[in-house]
Amino acid sequence: MRKIAILGVGQTPVDEHWDKSLRELGGEAAFAALHDAGLERAEGLFVGNMLSPLVDGQNQLGALLADWIGMWHQEAVKIEAACGSGAAAFRAALMAVASGELESALVVGVEKMTDRVGHDVTAALATAADADYEADQGISFVGINALVMRRYMHEFGWKHADFAPFSINAHANAAHNPFARLHDPITLNRFEKSSMVATPINLLDASPIGDGAAAAVIVPAELLGARYAPPQPGRPRVLVAASGVATDTIAVHSRKDPLFLDAAYESSRRAYDQAGVGPGDIELFELHDAFSIMSALSLEACGFAERGQGVRLGLENEISLRGRVPICTRGGLKARGHPVGATGMYQIVEVVQQLRGECGPSQVEGAKTGMAQNIGGSGASVLTHILQAG
Amino acid sequence: MRKIAILGVGQTPVDEHWDKSLRELGGEAAFAALHDAGLERAEGLFVGNMLSPLVDGQNQLGALLADWIGMWHQEAVKIEAACGSGAAAFRAALMAVASGELESALVVGVEKMTDRVGHDVTAALATAADADYEADQGISFVGINALVMRRYMHEFGWKHADFAPFSINAHANAAHNPFARLHDPITLNRFEKSSMVATPINLLDASPIGDGAAAAVIVPAELLGARYAPPQPGRPRVLVAASGVATDTIAVHSRKDPLFLDAAYESSRRAYDQAGVGPGDIELFELHDAFSIMSALSLEACGFAERGQGVRLGLENEISLRGRVPICTRGGLKARGHPVGATGMYQIVEVVQQLRGECGPSQVEGAKTGMAQNIGGSGASVLTHILQAG
Repeated sequence: MRKIAILGVGQTPVDEHWDKSLRELGGEAAFAALHDAGLERAEGLFVGNMLSPLVDGQNQLGALLADWIGMWHQEAVKIEAACGSGAAAFRAALMAVASGELESALVVGVEKMTDRVGHDVTAALATAADADYEADQGISFVGINALVMRRYMHEFGWKHADFAPFSINAHANAAHNPFARLHDPITLNRFEKSSMVATPINLLDASPIGDGAAAAVIVPAELLGARYAPPQPGRPRVLVAASGVATDTIAVHSRKDPLFLDAAYESSRRAYDQAGVGPGDIELFELHDAFSIMSALSLEACGFAERGQGVRLGLENEISLRGRVPICTRGGLKARGHPVGATGMYQIVEVVQQLRGECGPSQVEGAKTGMAQNIGGSGASVLTHILQAG
Repeated sequence: MRKIAILGVGQTPVDEHWDKSLRELGGEAAFAALHDAGLERAEGLFVGNMLSPLVDGQNQLGALLADWIGMWHQEAVKIEAACGSGAAAFRAALMAVASGELESALVVGVEKMTDRVGHDVTAALATAADADYEADQGISFVGINALVMRRYMHEFGWKHADFAPFSINAHANAAHNPFARLHDPITLNRFEKSSMVATPINLLDASPIGDGAAAAVIVPAELLGARYAPPQPGRPRVLVAASGVATDTIAVHSRKDPLFLDAAYESSRRAYDQAGVGPGDIELFELHDAFSIMSALSLEACGFAERGQGVRLGLENEISLRGRVPICTRGGLKARGHPVGATGMYQIVEVVQQLRGECGPSQVEGAKTGMAQNIGGSGASVLTHILQAG
């Protein structure tokens, strides 16, 4: 695929934005990204969102946002792949620009979950599960993940406290991210005493919902410096080295092995192949830690740990900023917050900030290659992007 | 953009399919299109759907259908642009194949509306309107179109019966389409006496909802005959000559002129430019007749009639199979039925069938160039595709 550059990024804090509508949130991130890119508008708009028809009573977010941000009459569409919607919109935009049909594209992930006009959020999130074979049984989305976590603990002999480092690491990193929802560091003691949500998942295993939007502007890399301004002095170009996607059954019980994320494996393998790198070359990994169990499973599927040994990376301090594979460097889903359809774009924005060296106390020193993996459902739609500075 | 060919198409009848789930409907159309293309599967799947989260409690239709039809671990995503979702998915697939990222793509438009597990369909359809400024006032989607129609009648001096030819033509053509929902021809008398829905829109001005799915398989045109089998003897190749898209404000009251579809104008102009043709070259036009007023407005926006004169084409019999611009040749939304997120793909399938000469009594003789226009909302997301036999 034609080489694509990320020209600008922007985001809103993840929070309870009761004073901002869906279009205002999306617009805020979009304008920030356009400003960062030095553009007034892009040729096309790709919106990632999961819940707006259910929670906000609004469909057609492409047209909604294109109008709001003044991209009148331009191409605009919404992409949905449950919690993987943000990165799915990013990939659709990559292909649109790579095809030559558009020269520039704005991608916005946006979600507004806290002051709903429609559905209860737990019921709305259950639409990421299989309606006929999972949700119809009355199980919630956290319930599905709880079954997976309990089986993992049983199968590989881990206890609940072994998952604590994922949460502690995410909270520690979020303290330095002004866009994160939670800024309070936590301890093992607090993790262990946190309220139970669905055994064995407690409140500190689970990512909080939130309202938020994150955006990026992309253009063909060969037009940097010609048609589009080169990066500011001292700021490296950020290129998309790879975009890998794979799917799996939505229902967890239909998989050969509920404890291995086949689609995360396939998606990362495709991305590694495209970029010509392996797990050892990844200097930071924004993974999809919707629940702590998902961190372990993602690390295993992407080749950072043996099967059943993902939690060991946390226990051995390999996931921190100076570890072998720094994860959740801006707080991850756990502490930055998880506005579901926007999350994939927050991850892209965060990797760009790391590669630009803009992360202050949570900077991964000298990082040139970062990876983001966005997951829809319990591993059903998985998108992996590798970004490189250069 | 790289030239793309449509290798195969398939569809289910539009009906009340209470015995078939969302995945079964989508699968039926997908398998028909793959069979028609002579393929077992495609490299990627693009699903157009508007209502499944609301009506069926199911998101993530990309992964759902990829699993069901045996495209395990392949790329799959859902695209939403309200009632324009089907053609929006088609365009996303075009760009994916044109980018070289995928060599073949399957596009499925699917909608299941009649035996809902969730929302009332009228409330669900209102998500195509502006939630903050239209739906919040309590107006339904048909109500919005009724306001537009009344204003059009007032402004240009037409009476309700002047819209009858749109409905009569659609019903007459649907009689020969085994996939259409309605097969009964209607008369002017029946049109005039039909029950009122939202004055001046009566039951025969409005398209019926329904369950259904329509699909197509696309590949790069240059691979036909080499990697993919050439068309069967006597069956022409069908190429995508143009794909145009444009957006407008969702709220009708925000537009400069509520009686002109700016996005339909822009979208068709872009398509004409790409294909190097004009309205006079279009031999059939599958337009988005969700309501009879939309037929008039679409014909005007696309250059087939002067402003305010779209209804004249019906009154002068220019929209019939032997007229100047045959529309709704397989029944249109009005009589084939309008399973909202699937409709755009039904239109593509129908244009392909016309260009292949497979339409029997409703064949437009010798047609080589056909156009399909799919509209989301009251003209907010508009996609225009021009297909050519050759």
